[in-house]
Amino acid sequence: MATFETVGRKEILPPDDNFQEKIRQSFRHQGVMAALNGELVDVRPCYVEIHLPFSEATRQQHGFFHGGMVATVADSASGYAAYTVLEADEECLSAEFKINFLSPARGSKLIARGSVIKAGRQLVITECSVSVVREGEEIDCALMLHTLARAKYVKSGPHSD
Amino acid sequence: MATFETVGRKEILPPDDNFQEKIRQSFRHQGVMAALNGELVDVRPCYVEIHLPFSEATRQQHGFFHGGMVATVADSASGYAAYTVLEADEECLSAEFKINFLSPARGSKLIARGSVIKAGRQLVITECSVSVVREGEEIDCALMLHTLARAKYVKSGPHSD
Amino acid sequence: MATFETVGRKEILPPDDNFQEKIRQSFRHQGVMAALNGELVDVRPCYVEIHLPFSEATRQQHGFFHGGMVATVADSASGYAAYTVLEADEECLSAEFKINFLSPARGSKLIARGSVIKAGRQLVITECSVSVVREGEEIDCALMLHTLARAKYVKSGPHSD
Amino acid sequence: MATFETVGRKEILPPDDNFQEKIRQSFRHQGVMAALNGELVDVRPCYVEIHLPFSEATRQQHGFFHGGMVATVADSASGYAAYTVLEADEECLSAEFKINFLSPARGSKLIARGSVIKAGRQLVITECSVSVVREGEEIDCALMLHTLARAKYVKSGPHSD
Repeated sequence: MATFETVGRKEILPPDDNFQEKIRQSFRHQGVMAALNGELVDVRPCYVEIHLPFSEATRQQHGFFHGGMVATVADSASGYAAYTVLEADEECLSAEFKINFLSPARGSKLIARGSVIKAGRQLVITECSVSVVREGEEIDCALMLHTLARAKYVKSGPHSD
Repeated sequence: MATFETVGRKEILPPDDNFQEKIRQSFRHQGVMAALNGELVDVRPCYVEIHLPFSEATRQQHGFFHGGMVATVADSASGYAAYTVLEADEECLSAEFKINFLSPARGSKLIARGSVIKAGRQLVITECSVSVVREGEEIDCALMLHTLARAKYVKSGPHSD
Repeated sequence: MATFETVGRKEILPPDDNFQEKIRQSFRHQGVMAALNGELVDVRPCYVEIHLPFSEATRQQHGFFHGGMVATVADSASGYAAYTVLEADEECLSAEFKINFLSPARGSKLIARGSVIKAGRQLVITECSVSVVREGEEIDCALMLHTLARAKYVKSGPHSD
Repeated sequence: MATFETVGRKEILPPDDNFQEKIRQSFRHQGVMAALNGELVDVRPCYVEIHLPFSEATRQQHGFFHGGMVATVADSASGYAAYTVLEADEECLSAEFKINFLSPARGSKLIARGSVIKAGRQLVITECSVSVVREGEEIDCALMLHTLARAKYVKSGPHSD
């Protein structure tokens, strides 16, 4: 599927055996995903897949998925992909992302596939490709490049400054 | 406020006298903004301001605004800023955007201020700065650079391909 | 190699039979590539590869390739990849690009592999991955996502406005 | 000139009294800038200005500045702007940047004005606007948003991994 096959890409072993439960628990605490009926479909080392069904709450003026919703599901999938390579006491923060829209997100469901490109000492670089399901067929609709910063886990939530 | 003061920035006169009504009508048709209680606060030539209150539907796992929600309100404000410079028979499509997160979006409300950087023949370049209201004070939380493509208005919605 | 394997990626047949000569001729007219000894190594449908040897003119303060040089070779490879899908009377202009640096560009040569992600009616979206050759081994050093706008060929050069 | 006037932007006092000399010395060690006759024109807290004259070594096929050269001078100006807010024992590495091209870089000189948007604990966010001097007039030609990571100074150069 959507993985940027770079020259030296190696499979990274999650340093935290508990990464899947950590991610599922975090996902359950996201009001956004609950409100939008987002579904955490797959969590594997360096890879997270999230599905988002079309609804009134995801539509823009033409009846397609709003670009912000495409970015939201991509941000979540690539962000959680980064979680798969974190230490047990770490989480990460989005520093920035860039997204290109390839075709109108017209369809019944978004499928976001996030994966890790590089796990550095300070930063984790991830990507996400988003496709939309239209009449049973998957059509590419967006690509994201995402930079996240490692942070020590804090109960009150992380701070970028 | 948040305007990228470039050397030659000129005020662009909206070619469509009806731009404000066109934008307000489009905004009303966005299921997303309705579901999130987004408010279209200001529509002026080259400038659009949208406010988004904090709610369960906008939160991530730490109780802050989800990064995707910050991107959604920024995408809407800068996208509608682009609408202010379109011809009457045009709309525009997001080609891509990039967003940097400056601090955690912890607060009661997001304020997104979108403005036009350049209105080209094919593309419109806009920016958006997003601040979060925390204990009555505005704190910068994100910056977006946004590229949109002009398209002739079509009832069924625009197509990028 | 470095290709973003998206769900629906199709091989696009170059509409201009003369695309290779058009690209080689354009490349020969780039003062930059001549000055830096850049080499156009491969030109195929949807794919262009450029090599850039390390030299005093490409170095930053630590003796690595300057980030701007990494961006320059990536911009050229992905830009020419876009040329492979243009009509005979078209060229294209960079609207924007985003590049992530994965590791320091320390080595003897940069290898930039540009390819087409999508050829739309107005825009062509390309990507480029850049590796650096260090002690005979290729190491990923950067990834670029690039948006170009089609333009009718004009002798005096294209204009984005 | 080109500063993103965000809500809470504060002037940051350089923690290193020697920041100007540190930057000038680093600049002198950049083979790229020497080869291109780049000139470090101004170094102030949170602000660096670099000029780049047009030459055969900076041109693309139409006789304009190559997009990569526009990115190179912007990367340098915004990167050195970040240097103005570093500790004495720190330097920084480009994590990524995104650049939008506003008009063809046709003219005799590029002027890149880099400034600091935010100096975080791990990351420094900067911007750069680039104008081109054409018949004595400055014309906006590009805008960059740039993310850099702090690193402890190492003689052998920094490493992002």
